[in-house]
Amino acid sequence: MLSCLVLTAGCWQGAPWPTLRPIGTIETCFTEKFATPRQGAVVPDALARLKLDTLEDGVDARAALDGLEAYSHVWLVWAAHLNGHAAARAKVQAPHLRGGRTGVFATRSPFRQNPLGLSLVQLRGIQGDTVLLSGVDLVSGTPVIDLKPYIPAYDAPAPGSTCRTADWVDPPTLPVRFTPEATAALERLRPAASKSHTPGLLDAASLRSTLEQSLAADPRPLYRWRRDGGDGAEYSVRVDGVRVLATICDAAVTVQRLGMDDEDCDTTSV
Amino acid sequence: MLSCLVLTAGCWQGAPWPTLRPIGTIETCFTEKFATPRQGAVVPDALARLKLDTLEDGVDARAALDGLEAYSHVWLVWAAHLNGHAAARAKVQAPHLRGGRTGVFATRSPFRQNPLGLSLVQLRGIQGDTVLLSGVDLVSGTPVIDLKPYIPAYDAPAPGSTCRTADWVDPPTLPVRFTPEATAALERLRPAASKSHTPGLLDAASLRSTLEQSLAADPRPLYRWRRDGGDGAEYSVRVDGVRVLATICDAAVTVQRLGMDDEDCDTTSV
Repeated sequence: MLSCLVLTAGCWQGAPWPTLRPIGTIETCFTEKFATPRQGAVVPDALARLKLDTLEDGVDARAALDGLEAYSHVWLVWAAHLNGHAAARAKVQAPHLRGGRTGVFATRSPFRQNPLGLSLVQLRGIQGDTVLLSGVDLVSGTPVIDLKPYIPAYDAPAPGSTCRTADWVDPPTLPVRFTPEATAALERLRPAASKSHTPGLLDAASLRSTLEQSLAADPRPLYRWRRDGGDGAEYSVRVDGVRVLATICDAAVTVQRLGMDDEDCDTTSV
Repeated sequence: MLSCLVLTAGCWQGAPWPTLRPIGTIETCFTEKFATPRQGAVVPDALARLKLDTLEDGVDARAALDGLEAYSHVWLVWAAHLNGHAAARAKVQAPHLRGGRTGVFATRSPFRQNPLGLSLVQLRGIQGDTVLLSGVDLVSGTPVIDLKPYIPAYDAPAPGSTCRTADWVDPPTLPVRFTPEATAALERLRPAASKSHTPGLLDAASLRSTLEQSLAADPRPLYRWRRDGGDGAEYSVRVDGVRVLATICDAAVTVQRLGMDDEDCDTTSV
């Protein structure tokens, strides 16, 4: 969808700015914004693949990744391509603020002056021109602009130094449980990773933990939280080709049912 | 210099990508690439001011910063506007590799597919539309694209998890000493921050520690390191309006002399 990004105007040592392009499009277990975690650390089991397929002409993606395997974690800089509107407001309503507003630069909201996202994710491996990742918070298809190694000496406050954050950014998680029906469906749909009949990234155990982690973080956007309150509202969640029906009631989540997203007979009931 | 950045081509929910602009230009104590640290953590005493002066029309910079004071550290996403050439190579020679080459994505080199930098810096205060920072690694005048709060739960590996980096990225520092002549000049030039006769950011003690930290990290680019070896070569360093002459010999740095950059009588000897 996004073919290139251009830094225009101004000068670059007297010459026009170079054209910027996504280095690749990420494939993740999340295909919808709803239930995609707000940060990668929220769902450490979320898997993804990043294929470096749009480098400049003549740049060998495999060579550009050479040496990256020495690192356990990497940064993804990405474009918030699903923002439905331009971000021209000074203050935003973060979901955890529950209706309060704060300066956009005091948040990680994707609706910001420049819709770039930053995610620390775990590097699981490199296969040719493809990077295997976990702990991602990106909707499948998000254009990735840059990949940088995580270096604690540069990317974390010095040991012992004071680190403060706003008190609203890291709320407690919700308990999540599966009904027996949902658990049985999970085992039926994903008997084992090696035997999976889907092209998905997750086996049964990973899918379950990914769902648990994602739902525990209360994925409701503000308008749903406001509309539904805590009163047993139903949410349809799609993760890695599986459609899930969950309810949130009394600050707890219950996964009620699940089925393959492409199986009409299963999903109609969901 | 850089007036705007445009994300072009592709679609953004069917519409053209929005125009991106630097949120401001940073003013730091470093006016040249040489001796500007490679990462902010290297020189924690390096001070800077970021004035948010180029937000979209109608966006109040003061409001956009509201709430940011709750955080002790912030990310800067910036454009490597001093890159003298396009980065179209898959492998780069990082100075610490001493001539070896590695994949560009295994480095924090500014010469990358998309010349965006990422720096964790300390937030010292907010004054209206201006953010006061320390531990910066940016040449004064660098366009800043985004400012995000640092949130340990998102931006650091989970406590207890394994974190690996390449073994070349964090070399030991060099010892730095000042000659009596340099120390005397420092005290003469900067008797106290409040009485400073320069528009600089640093008082005598901060200038000294900033110089020490910057030089200890061996700021020589690869070509100087190769050319000069360890044999007493002289380096001219400019920090916060002060011109410094230092020598690097036998893996140690000596600050020989210093003078105001704009005082011909002092700087001619430097």
